[in-house]
Amino acid sequence: MTGDRLARQVAFLLEVDRLKGIGRQSYVLGGERKENSAEHSWHVALMALVLAEYAPPEVDLARVVRMLLVHDLVEIDAGDAYFYDAAANEAKPDREQAAAERIFGLLPSDQAADLRAAWEEFEIGETSEARFAKGMDRLMPLLHNHHTQGRSWREHGIRRGQVENRLLPDLAKASPAFHALAVALIDDAFKRGWLVE
Amino acid sequence: MTGDRLARQVAFLLEVDRLKGIGRQSYVLGGERKENSAEHSWHVALMALVLAEYAPPEVDLARVVRMLLVHDLVEIDAGDAYFYDAAANEAKPDREQAAAERIFGLLPSDQAADLRAAWEEFEIGETSEARFAKGMDRLMPLLHNHHTQGRSWREHGIRRGQVENRLLPDLAKASPAFHALAVALIDDAFKRGWLVE
Repeated sequence: MTGDRLARQVAFLLEVDRLKGIGRQSYVLGGERKENSAEHSWHVALMALVLAEYAPPEVDLARVVRMLLVHDLVEIDAGDAYFYDAAANEAKPDREQAAAERIFGLLPSDQAADLRAAWEEFEIGETSEARFAKGMDRLMPLLHNHHTQGRSWREHGIRRGQVENRLLPDLAKASPAFHALAVALIDDAFKRGWLVE
Repeated sequence: MTGDRLARQVAFLLEVDRLKGIGRQSYVLGGERKENSAEHSWHVALMALVLAEYAPPEVDLARVVRMLLVHDLVEIDAGDAYFYDAAANEAKPDREQAAAERIFGLLPSDQAADLRAAWEEFEIGETSEARFAKGMDRLMPLLHNHHTQGRSWREHGIRRGQVENRLLPDLAKASPAFHALAVALIDDAFKRGWLVE
């Protein structure tokens, strides 16, 4: 029994290696290439540890980290929809549900249900943990863009209003400190011409 | 106060982005390139969540995950010493202590001490959490090598005895299930000629 169970767990862990091949739009800070979703998942999970003190007191940090470690797995099948591409994001939910079914389904059924629930919780974004996790996922690309002179924004001609509309509500829900930081960074990026009006 | 504290935390998070540029010897499973230490850190942290049931009951999983998220940060300055390169591993401790001083030192001092302690705990490998975390760090490259026909072993002419000596004691300390899995994988790899005598 253990053998079969462990075999399924290993099969899942090997399959998700493919997240290392899923490209995102953010550049690594050296600027030589865009990052992938596995690196990003590590970075936001670590971010949650470092910024935990800004979370409301009821937040269970271990659950936040768990969500962040699995939040992008569905991209293995469904791909990464660019955050500012409205059409791609519209079409996303169905593809992602099918991806979740297949990928989490590689695990023993109790774990499949458990980790899929963590992913759903993140997607729905209503619990305190999901709000904080989503805050990490919003803040990190903003930091990346700001520290690469808005490189990915400029490449896609992103407007200030788009960034504000897509980021600020989620950041306000995560923590007032993140909202304030984001407002300052967006303002600065606009002044420097990295975001257009 | 919050502003300066948050600024230090953000500076740390931006600096550790460089872990995405630290190459390891393991190939991603598609085989097209070697992985980096940021991707690896994500993969072993997720592995700890999935394989948690094999840990002794006293293990605090959140502490294991925390260790795994920071366990390779010192490589940003000290580089990744190949696991089977005895000379490189001999020279490692001094370089890594200096790296830990600088990198964790970017954080506010309470957090610097806290995350550096997590890294030290992993390195020393004596607590139940560190043993389990180290088990993840040993098991993953074995799975990667086995699933790429021993590619990185063959590239470096690694012998069966080297793998056994370097992996099996740590895996036995982490869990009997991992030790048994490793013995089977090493045996299979040897039979297929991916490891030499």
